[in-house]
Amino acid sequence: MPELRHNLITREWVIIATDRAKRPSDFSNHQDRMAAPSHVSSCPFCPGNESKTPEELHRISIDGMWKMRVVANKYPAVDRDGAKTRSIDGTERFVSGVGLHDIIIESPLHNTTLALMEPEDIVTALGLYKERFIEAYKDSRVEHVIIFKNHGLGAGTSIDHPHAQLVAIPIVPVQHRDRVNTAMQYFDDTGVCLMCDTLNREIKDAKRIVTETEHFLTFIPYAALSPFHSWIFPKRHSASFSDITDDEIEDLGFHLKNLLSRFYYGLEDPDFNLVIRSSRPKDIGNEFTHWYMSVMPKMTQTAGFELGSGMYINQSLPEENAEFLKGVRIG
Amino acid sequence: MPELRHNLITREWVIIATDRAKRPSDFSNHQDRMAAPSHVSSCPFCPGNESKTPEELHRISIDGMWKMRVVANKYPAVDRDGAKTRSIDGTERFVSGVGLHDIIIESPLHNTTLALMEPEDIVTALGLYKERFIEAYKDSRVEHVIIFKNHGLGAGTSIDHPHAQLVAIPIVPVQHRDRVNTAMQYFDDTGVCLMCDTLNREIKDAKRIVTETEHFLTFIPYAALSPFHSWIFPKRHSASFSDITDDEIEDLGFHLKNLLSRFYYGLEDPDFNLVIRSSRPKDIGNEFTHWYMSVMPKMTQTAGFELGSGMYINQSLPEENAEFLKGVRIG
Repeated sequence: MPELRHNLITREWVIIATDRAKRPSDFSNHQDRMAAPSHVSSCPFCPGNESKTPEELHRISIDGMWKMRVVANKYPAVDRDGAKTRSIDGTERFVSGVGLHDIIIESPLHNTTLALMEPEDIVTALGLYKERFIEAYKDSRVEHVIIFKNHGLGAGTSIDHPHAQLVAIPIVPVQHRDRVNTAMQYFDDTGVCLMCDTLNREIKDAKRIVTETEHFLTFIPYAALSPFHSWIFPKRHSASFSDITDDEIEDLGFHLKNLLSRFYYGLEDPDFNLVIRSSRPKDIGNEFTHWYMSVMPKMTQTAGFELGSGMYINQSLPEENAEFLKGVRIG
Repeated sequence: MPELRHNLITREWVIIATDRAKRPSDFSNHQDRMAAPSHVSSCPFCPGNESKTPEELHRISIDGMWKMRVVANKYPAVDRDGAKTRSIDGTERFVSGVGLHDIIIESPLHNTTLALMEPEDIVTALGLYKERFIEAYKDSRVEHVIIFKNHGLGAGTSIDHPHAQLVAIPIVPVQHRDRVNTAMQYFDDTGVCLMCDTLNREIKDAKRIVTETEHFLTFIPYAALSPFHSWIFPKRHSASFSDITDDEIEDLGFHLKNLLSRFYYGLEDPDFNLVIRSSRPKDIGNEFTHWYMSVMPKMTQTAGFELGSGMYINQSLPEENAEFLKGVRIG
């Protein structure tokens, strides 16, 4: 019989459709990434095409060659210039679409991906995420910053070259506000951070853990929204990603490469979305929210049921997903 | 410059990316539906294959031939049999996955679709939706019912034969609860139903209307979540779809065929999801919620930004969408 499991953090119930649970091999979608060339002359993110990207905002170089670049998005969701204006006219409420939309190009190589990159390069990329995250909040128009990565066509990327994105918007998304409110309510009811409690329970259960180290826990949540949906939680309570230490960045780099390698070799390089869920740097003192990284392989399609209910149907068992990932040989 | 528009009903801000607004022709994805055969021997929903579907729950026949059938889903999201049980163990909360998952087969013809069906057949289908909706709520395990339709592969259907689905679940989705709370708050603040206010504003603005008749208004909402996202609102305040009258069903059938024909001929039969958003029959006396139908063509892909923020980026202008749909020749 299917189970409904409550995801306390998103507040949503997930239908774990155990009867039609699929095997990992049902989800494979081999991309043959390594067969792609390391340089593509038409790719705007490949070396030699620097003039094809708009304004360069930051660059990390080694021996005179760039290693990573941060550039403005050519087709931004929000405009970098312009004033923040707001109008309220009955049921029509408007805010000007201003803010930042940056691209973080993570490698000069067209055909690499975090799973294949050197650990120190992943650490460099994560450091860059942190730096740009803090920087973005200095813009007085900005109320919320989202760092994410779309890997593969099915996950919505239009350019294969490895890159992450940062979008800084002039409003707080209701999803974020709702989750903060949920966590605050939990803290008021129990005196404990909801994410800390979740973390401790996952460690105690020990059924859904993929990797545990000193600073982080990678696990499949009890009410995972979709197959192999994974969370990487910092063990130390911290409301904002801006607070991450150098030691923690190094450990996070290990977890990220580890998890993505298990996807890469075990699930044949699936499309995935990666998101950092975090409060603002100035919320750092807050006891009830806790930043984390969410990685969601795109293995199933959402349809009318998900649209009409906001719920998810997960056709796999979180416990089996974790067991499978742990068993993947990553060299 | 992009605009952020607030969707008061979903509470979410939508980025209307006017700078990269696409033309309707950018969204075309011709399906060549009419080229498909009217009968497919391997299709479980085609006549002659009645034994391939599980338990038949209802049938409408004419001259000894069935016209529509309601059957249990062969791969249900929730089990029809079994008791509703609930357990709470710290952060792990569970409800048994029981309820109903029905398929409403809308025609014996494999290659038809609502846009091409006779008006009276659409009215019959809508009557069947209403009947099954009311029936589902009689099951004491059921707390919420969602009626939806996935049209086309990109919208998540696995079987092309025209059908809708009904899922009755043993919990209330947080999305529904949140929207009801939002509408209740609006009512308490203003003394008016949020959807009635939205409806009146759309009629007054007259910029986003596709079709208006005595009982219904079809329009592109001010903060449409995606290109050609359309709402069909009953003009009479009513909290539950169960309350729809025969006259209104006839008028709704006209609106639905009208809208879907404009999609079919103007946008070349796009994939779409259709959802009925409604409170329970027993909430009928409630002044602050208002049922409606939402139709969302699947013309763009959601990715990390949408996942990480819960927001949408709409690369088209609602006003232009409405203008375009009004101009489509539907014979």
